Amino acid sequence: MYPYAAPLRDLSFVLSEMLEHESLNLAPFAEVGPELVDAVLEEAAKLASDVWAPLNASGDRQGCSRLEDGSVTLPDGFAEAYQAYAEGGWNGIGVSEERGGQGLPEVVASSVQEMLHGANMALGLCPMLTAGAIEALAHHGSDELQQRYLARLVEGSWTGTMNLTEPQAGSDLSRVRTRAVPEGDHYRLFGQKIFITWGEHEAAENIIHLVLARTPDAPEGNKGISLFLVPKFLVNEDGSLGERNDVVCASIEHKMGIHGSPTCTLSFGEKDGAVGYLVGEAGRGLNHMFTMMNEARHKVGIQGIGVAERACQHALAYANDRSQGRTPPSRGGEPCTIGEHLDVRRMLLSMRARTDALRALALLCAQQLDVARHHEDEPRRREAQARAEVLIPVVKGFSTDQAVDIASLGVQVHGGMGFIEETGAAQLLRDVRIAPIYEGTNGIQALDLAGRKLQRDGGAALSLLIDEVQATAEALSAHSSLAPLGAELAAGAEDLRACAALVLEAGADAERGADAIQAYATPLLSLTGHVLCAWQMGRAAIIARAALDAGSDDDFYRRKLACADFAVRQWLPEGRAQRRVIEAGFDELLSVSLG
Amino acid sequence: MYPYAAPLRDLSFVLSEMLEHESLNLAPFAEVGPELVDAVLEEAAKLASDVWAPLNASGDRQGCSRLEDGSVTLPDGFAEAYQAYAEGGWNGIGVSEERGGQGLPEVVASSVQEMLHGANMALGLCPMLTAGAIEALAHHGSDELQQRYLARLVEGSWTGTMNLTEPQAGSDLSRVRTRAVPEGDHYRLFGQKIFITWGEHEAAENIIHLVLARTPDAPEGNKGISLFLVPKFLVNEDGSLGERNDVVCASIEHKMGIHGSPTCTLSFGEKDGAVGYLVGEAGRGLNHMFTMMNEARHKVGIQGIGVAERACQHALAYANDRSQGRTPPSRGGEPCTIGEHLDVRRMLLSMRARTDALRALALLCAQQLDVARHHEDEPRRREAQARAEVLIPVVKGFSTDQAVDIASLGVQVHGGMGFIEETGAAQLLRDVRIAPIYEGTNGIQALDLAGRKLQRDGGAALSLLIDEVQATAEALSAHSSLAPLGAELAAGAEDLRACAALVLEAGADAERGADAIQAYATPLLSLTGHVLCAWQMGRAAIIARAALDAGSDDDFYRRKLACADFAVRQWLPEGRAQRRVIEAGFDELLSVSLG
Repeated sequence: MYPYAAPLRDLSFVLSEMLEHESLNLAPFAEVGPELVDAVLEEAAKLASDVWAPLNASGDRQGCSRLEDGSVTLPDGFAEAYQAYAEGGWNGIGVSEERGGQGLPEVVASSVQEMLHGANMALGLCPMLTAGAIEALAHHGSDELQQRYLARLVEGSWTGTMNLTEPQAGSDLSRVRTRAVPEGDHYRLFGQKIFITWGEHEAAENIIHLVLARTPDAPEGNKGISLFLVPKFLVNEDGSLGERNDVVCASIEHKMGIHGSPTCTLSFGEKDGAVGYLVGEAGRGLNHMFTMMNEARHKVGIQGIGVAERACQHALAYANDRSQGRTPPSRGGEPCTIGEHLDVRRMLLSMRARTDALRALALLCAQQLDVARHHEDEPRRREAQARAEVLIPVVKGFSTDQAVDIASLGVQVHGGMGFIEETGAAQLLRDVRIAPIYEGTNGIQALDLAGRKLQRDGGAALSLLIDEVQATAEALSAHSSLAPLGAELAAGAEDLRACAALVLEAGADAERGADAIQAYATPLLSLTGHVLCAWQMGRAAIIARAALDAGSDDDFYRRKLACADFAVRQWLPEGRAQRRVIEAGFDELLSVSLG
Repeated sequence: MYPYAAPLRDLSFVLSEMLEHESLNLAPFAEVGPELVDAVLEEAAKLASDVWAPLNASGDRQGCSRLEDGSVTLPDGFAEAYQAYAEGGWNGIGVSEERGGQGLPEVVASSVQEMLHGANMALGLCPMLTAGAIEALAHHGSDELQQRYLARLVEGSWTGTMNLTEPQAGSDLSRVRTRAVPEGDHYRLFGQKIFITWGEHEAAENIIHLVLARTPDAPEGNKGISLFLVPKFLVNEDGSLGERNDVVCASIEHKMGIHGSPTCTLSFGEKDGAVGYLVGEAGRGLNHMFTMMNEARHKVGIQGIGVAERACQHALAYANDRSQGRTPPSRGGEPCTIGEHLDVRRMLLSMRARTDALRALALLCAQQLDVARHHEDEPRRREAQARAEVLIPVVKGFSTDQAVDIASLGVQVHGGMGFIEETGAAQLLRDVRIAPIYEGTNGIQALDLAGRKLQRDGGAALSLLIDEVQATAEALSAHSSLAPLGAELAAGAEDLRACAALVLEAGADAERGADAIQAYATPLLSLTGHVLCAWQMGRAAIIARAALDAGSDDDFYRRKLACADFAVRQWLPEGRAQRRVIEAGFDELLSVSLG
């Protein structure tokens, strides 16, 4: 079991050299300088590496499998590690100061979250869900609700959950059946929710459930669904805790991974009904939920990257420890570690190059979110928002698919030891396998990109991104040593433009449009992810090349160049194959009888 | 949890329509007709579906984690299910009649094994290892050893193991340190072996360990290693069991999957030394081991296909059960199962098309093994052997990599339920994740292909295979409706020919040759697997098209056509991208400092 080392240098490279700390130029961050950012990341790194990471393996072994009288026993140390996080003020790092947070930019909050998820994904889920509840309340809650609940959620003394799924309602939330019956200034909720992450635990004094439910006379379908706040303990007017609400944990799931994260079935209203308060407008529950879901999806992508980073570190450490075979005669013919064999180095470089690329893209997206929220210029805000909304399904879908593959390669580098649980390589794969599924499956992400995000503006926002990819390709081509990267990236950009046009046109077809979007969604997401990631690595290559040309002798920059070369010339071609997939059409998908 | 249905129709399609039962024309199988083959497969299907498959989930849950006084407790029902297998005569199905087996062709034995592994991979490992021991003894054991041990192994009343790995000696077996000290007509063994599959259990009366060890004066490295037979219980001259030998199970591993298969650390010689008998020539232990390893590798590929098949079945059953969303307006706009959504159908078709393709290739390889062993014409035997030896690393490496991906897609089709252990989708992924690792990691398979198998004949055997791919491409192009498949397949064949030539030339370089082979091995294996699998599906398309043109109205043939279209036009392009990967060279792999 190798320790986790927070990737401070890599994060700093993206924030300062690739993104040039652009978020810090925004008005709300006038007081925040690069030194403060570095100091914050260093402190977060200590929490991640020293407090959270050591509990990752024991949390997996112990799990949360004990449920007694509705009470879940967390793995040893999890409650204390959560407390250390909350007391350090980390829960409010990206929340504005007026709401009791630290008011730091999203790029910084995202960097911190990457480290925490890399250290302990199961524990990281608790604040991730709380962040969703904060968003929902801050955007849609009444002043009274905000006053009573928001500060405690921001400080982390209470945690939050998202109650969407029911047995018959998963990707299709229009099928939600949980009922909310009005009673004076509140409602009484009755129903069952499943897959509720951190739905019950005792690491915090109270749990604030945000719940989708139907009011009695609501219409069928999406428009009948409202959003409710249901506290585990009722909260008195003075903020003190009142009686236990009628919501209980009925069971916890036995899962493939994230064993340290309790996944609960919650029963609402087994007695008199769970007291709940309407959040936002009646009938607009799904809209309110989706406000925050965009950001939750970005965070799931970040989470995948955190685990991918840890997989890279473990695989490299093992490869450098494990002595097997010899170098070729031309390199001495001596006994060596497997990290000397080029087939193993291919796996290590592939893992590293992809993780670097995914991180750069996810933080670019975070920066767009900063600009979208805080830029003084409205058109700039709008443009950044449109860009972020195109990027989010890619960051969520592509990063998590890649993270599963990277974690699986990490197992492979370990050979037989990778399959033995004690090395921890298998846990990373088991844990991260959920990321392509929750917060909207990656199929849903692909539909979001190929359907909503692409169709609504005729591909304009994506097209602007492709323009930037092409500009980077031209800049690469102007460098003698980077020209091969420029040619490949330009070809990738051209493929993406062609495929986006094809999907747009097919999607507009009155008869087959909806089917076309579903059929093309996944290959389009994959192509987009490959091209945008290769673009980021092209940008990294230009920066690293310039640093080396300016006299730096830092291996870090040489590694970035190698990663960029790999990403553009050896990884992007796999993505470009998706053009042929899309051009093959979808007649077979429609007609085949699968048995 | 869905039941397992043995894929009799698909197996029969490959054996009778694609391979035209060519193995049955060989002299030893003169008595074997297609009807007998069908009857055997039907009986095997009953054992697999009715006896083995129902224990798959409970075996995973219970595992083999109890070890008391050196004795391993198997999951409930495993011993009885193994007995049913042995008593049915299944263990000797592919063993010649003179050795007490059923004397059926390898294509039939492989088909039976696919079903058993699909039903219960953890249990299937027990006879798989026994088969290796039978091979080793039959090829290299003295008459006396054969007389005393072979019949009991063939009938399955004793099981066998392969003891290769030690903590410091995995892929690099030259580092084996276990000692074998001569004593009269036998040896005394001292040392520790790890990762011994089914190394200890009580489902059979005795366990015959085949062990790599060094004699006292043996030279360093590979040439000092000999192969020994070490029984758990010594065997008296009359065949009865004598005293317990000095080999004990010191611990069992806690693994990611195949929990029902005990993976043991065996200690040899904690007292006086374990009595062992030399198998074959002293100093040729590795060669003897590799005789059988070629076939064991083929069987690991088959195993991956068995699990992939089960993943296809479960995913399809879930997709047809699970109601979410609606069909597009053009298809009625009604509530529907997820099996109606084209993004889900893409996953299902991809899983099915790839599994079909892998099966066809693995059984083609089995047929080559039949010809290589039994054809009356020596050049035909030689040619088939050369072809099988090229195919084996592809069947092992490519099938198992794909099986992991297919099982992972199976999890994805299940959505959130896929991550919950009770559906069984996660178990398939956890189980099959070992297949790319054991019997030589897939990196080792790739080196076997790009190094030994390609270099030793200058690519001649592979080139003959590519000629056949091109012939199929031409036949496809001659059909009006299959011409697009022909064009893509021809392009794939051309890519493979070019890359094989590039790797051959680079491998011959005196300075960088060994590095080049390591660097190119994995992309070459992937390209080869994609092209050969697409070739098989091209052949399937021609057969299916002919059947439909001749008036068949069987949906089975339409499904084969759809799978072939998908495999050639949507899967092969991903493999063809490996040409660009290879053409990108390997300078970065050599030079990069990975940290």
